[in-house]
Amino acid sequence: MTDKQTLNPPQRLLMGPGPINADPRVLRAMSAQLIGQYDPAMTGFMNETMARYRQIFKTNNEWTFLIDGTSRAGIESALLSMLRPGDKVLVPIMGRFGHLLAEIATRAQADVHTIEVAWGEVFQPEQIEAAIKRVQPRVLAMVQGDTSTTMNQPLGDIGAICQQHDVLFYCDATASIVGNDLPADKWQVDALTVGLQKCLGGPSGSAPITLSDKCVDWIRQRKKVEAGIRTADHQDGIEPFIRSNYFDLGMIMDYWGEERLNHHTEATSMLYCASECARIVLEEGVDECVARHKLHGDAMLAGVQALGLKVFGDINHKMNNVVGVYIPSEVNGDQVRNQMLNDFGIEIGTSFGPLHGKIWRIGTMGYNARKDTVLQTLACLDACLQANGYKGPSGEATLAALAYYHGQ
Amino acid sequence: MTDKQTLNPPQRLLMGPGPINADPRVLRAMSAQLIGQYDPAMTGFMNETMARYRQIFKTNNEWTFLIDGTSRAGIESALLSMLRPGDKVLVPIMGRFGHLLAEIATRAQADVHTIEVAWGEVFQPEQIEAAIKRVQPRVLAMVQGDTSTTMNQPLGDIGAICQQHDVLFYCDATASIVGNDLPADKWQVDALTVGLQKCLGGPSGSAPITLSDKCVDWIRQRKKVEAGIRTADHQDGIEPFIRSNYFDLGMIMDYWGEERLNHHTEATSMLYCASECARIVLEEGVDECVARHKLHGDAMLAGVQALGLKVFGDINHKMNNVVGVYIPSEVNGDQVRNQMLNDFGIEIGTSFGPLHGKIWRIGTMGYNARKDTVLQTLACLDACLQANGYKGPSGEATLAALAYYHGQ
Repeated sequence: MTDKQTLNPPQRLLMGPGPINADPRVLRAMSAQLIGQYDPAMTGFMNETMARYRQIFKTNNEWTFLIDGTSRAGIESALLSMLRPGDKVLVPIMGRFGHLLAEIATRAQADVHTIEVAWGEVFQPEQIEAAIKRVQPRVLAMVQGDTSTTMNQPLGDIGAICQQHDVLFYCDATASIVGNDLPADKWQVDALTVGLQKCLGGPSGSAPITLSDKCVDWIRQRKKVEAGIRTADHQDGIEPFIRSNYFDLGMIMDYWGEERLNHHTEATSMLYCASECARIVLEEGVDECVARHKLHGDAMLAGVQALGLKVFGDINHKMNNVVGVYIPSEVNGDQVRNQMLNDFGIEIGTSFGPLHGKIWRIGTMGYNARKDTVLQTLACLDACLQANGYKGPSGEATLAALAYYHGQ
Repeated sequence: MTDKQTLNPPQRLLMGPGPINADPRVLRAMSAQLIGQYDPAMTGFMNETMARYRQIFKTNNEWTFLIDGTSRAGIESALLSMLRPGDKVLVPIMGRFGHLLAEIATRAQADVHTIEVAWGEVFQPEQIEAAIKRVQPRVLAMVQGDTSTTMNQPLGDIGAICQQHDVLFYCDATASIVGNDLPADKWQVDALTVGLQKCLGGPSGSAPITLSDKCVDWIRQRKKVEAGIRTADHQDGIEPFIRSNYFDLGMIMDYWGEERLNHHTEATSMLYCASECARIVLEEGVDECVARHKLHGDAMLAGVQALGLKVFGDINHKMNNVVGVYIPSEVNGDQVRNQMLNDFGIEIGTSFGPLHGKIWRIGTMGYNARKDTVLQTLACLDACLQANGYKGPSGEATLAALAYYHGQ
């Protein structure tokens, strides 16, 4: 028997690795009434959204738009459109989401080459360059911030290396964008995809993307206009066509571009949402938004260290917006997380793969990168740990965070 | 320079072939705050949503869930997961969306066979059966309601034919669901995908799907758990793996199922939305909802006929929720549509392909299948036609619709 009521979510403070609570302004923007997909007002909104994400990504790329799906849809659309079957791709893996890029590239029937560092570490540019020289890939696919390990891969030198070796540089910055610096043009990123559910402060379900002109030229070589709307004026490209209709970036660009050629029906509410996420960040300023993530991330770090929790991974390359801590041996990790959720109303995260059951992940991102959320989380975690047999210090966490804020 | 304001959509009455205005209750449901994707409350919401769509589809299928993307994402996930490269698929084409199914199957590298009827007609079961005997496909892929022609393909006999010839029956009912009858179990549909933006009264962006046990067994043979979350307990299937990660229904079922294996991050706001769309229809009753679409669709039909507009296609097989009319030769079709939109605030549709510029399409669907919207649209279209040099009757349209309502 189904319930007769509208879903009524409980109040949760989401302080895990994402999704986090959406900014209430984003939720309100989503509740605006729909308009038609070819309404001039809608065309204006699409163009406005493109302009906003150019600023978010610090790019002049014309082709900056949305993929209608979760962040993973953005990744797949980029890799499937950039890689022909058999094309070599190099994927440096530092955590779970590097594995995901390799997985998606494998499904695209690319020739996938990987290099790995231990979870909790990042790559040096020399390692990337050596692998590029060895593999000679068409595409380098890298994650910037991998929440599975909390590491933020430095990318400032990677674009130049790719340029030098004629490699297209794809970056997945779902978890890091606007929480950590990523100037797409300056760093010569050819394709960049993100999601809304981390530092952009929205729900999952729309994937902003930007593509360099070079990348667009490459993708356009595989152009294929679908039957049913194709006219005699449409010329197909020379390369093997993209093995997806939904993720064919050429067709999606024709829909967002001047021809407005019918493809999917734009997910209008998610477009309102994505646009508002960007608007709110731009109102604050992208650099100011990154600085806010650093401030509150560092306060959280000071707090968990004062709690006596050991931080996971290379702290010099930690993402601003998430911290991993080892679960103390004397407590039951799942029991603590469950009590945090059910009794205190605060969600913190577990982890995947080799770190499953070993670390908790605590996020400070998007709308939840605030002083009050940091202090509430630390006070409650302190209390919850004590209630679960923790033998470490108590009463120090919020003081340390307050002291950190005071010193800034 | 980007605008500093939240997008502020103009008020439009959307009476085209969809999207239409969302039910305000759906928009409100979407503005609820987020919760974590593994929160027990979220698991409950996912299960509740599955239960609701089982009722919408009139099915007992366990595997009834959502694909995170537009209706086209639902189509691609079904076809890509049901068809291995080289598998034969039969696609009967009666309009633009039949071409789309063939296109998506081609991208999936299936061996695609098509049969066609003229736009404005439907297939007879004998035509389908003869083609099945000739082609011997693994999958039959058909559209129920194709808005490009306004035709509603009778499907009552098709499932039995498929069973008899051991063919999997896929149906795209994006434009027809809950506006026209479609009992999935009774009609032996193996896979059915829809969208929210037509008679379900929501925005585009989530694609409900249901799969028969037979279809699930077939898809599970191609199981592949992604690297990064795979454990020693996970066995891969024997068939060639699905050429997409995002659209791998096996993995999406593992995410919606008891294992709750991480895949995408569920688009929570769109889940709230999809669930509310279903709740509202179930509150009314599925059969009552279909009857409402028939009532208001027939009133609109009476009105446009009284206006002297010639109806497109086989009127005995018209979808309840949309009517096509020939654009009178003495008026400029785009000018009328533009004035309807800009001066009267009402959107009606144009068409695609062979019908482009020849017919208008007028919808009465979802939240907009109401008496007031029918009468407003007819009164304004009457006035707008007169303002644009139309030589046909005036003043008759709303009277005819009112008379129709009075006679019911």
